[in-house]
Parts: sequence; C-alpha cells; structure tokens
Amino acid sequence: MTTSTYTVKGMTCGHCVSSVKEEVGEVAGVAHAEVDLATGLLTVTSEDPVEDAAIIAAVEVAGYEVVNRS
Amino acid sequence: MTTSTYTVKGMTCGHCVSSVKEEVGEVAGVAHAEVDLATGLLTVTSEDPVEDAAIIAAVEVAGYEVVNRS
Repeated sequence: MTTSTYTVKGMTCGHCVSSVKEEVGEVAGVAHAEVDLATGLLTVTSEDPVEDAAIIAAVEVAGYEVVNRS
Repeated sequence: MTTSTYTVKGMTCGHCVSSVKEEVGEVAGVAHAEVDLATGLLTVTSEDPVEDAAIIAAVEVAGYEVVNRS
C-alpha cells in the first residue's frame, strides 16, 4: 500500500471533512481517505500510487484547495 | 404568513447552513427556512405560528444551538 499526505485549506467543520473524504474516496485506485480537520491533513491510502493531480482535482470538486503535498 | 427569527450558534460553512435549513424545513407547518451564515440568523416562515421548541429541537438535531429568539 502507498500513503500520500496533502494539506487542504478551507475546511471548517465535519461536513467539510466528509465532502473531502467522499470525493477523494471516489478517485480510481484510492482505498482510503482520512482527514484531520484541525491540521487540514488529508492522508490517502492506495494499493498503487495515485497521481497527485487526481487527488488535487477531487479536493477542488469538494470545494477546497490543496496547498501542500508532503 | 408568520415569520420568526432565531440566532443559531456554531455554523461555520455552507454545509452547516444546509443542515439547519433541511432540519427546520422538515418541521410540521414550516413553509420556508432561511439562514444567514455571517450573522447566524435563521428566519422561519409558516402559515400558522410554529412552537419555538420545535424549531429549537430541529436546530439541535442538525447539530447546532439556538442562542436567541427575536
């Protein structure tokens, strides 16, 4: 399994967290998406590496922005 | 038509607004519920007066708190 971490800007509540998790979870290849509201940290787990662009696009669809990839 | 106004605490984003509008809109007799995120103002329109307790309970179900009835 591969784990990638991103920092997401703009989430303010549990609903925001749910939106991000839902959209990122729908990206092909993503096995699990976890979000920490306090830090804005999005952790994506996948069997094979998933392109950053796909994750960033999914976060944008949810209405937020990736400001860092770590 | 009757209009009642409440101040709701804890809403941080558009998702919160949607949750409150949805729950309050489902209260028997409520014709329309409008929320202003910046001020926290919830405006409830109904044909006949609706009990405050029913509105307050609906806001709580959504996960927020009525702090004032004006």
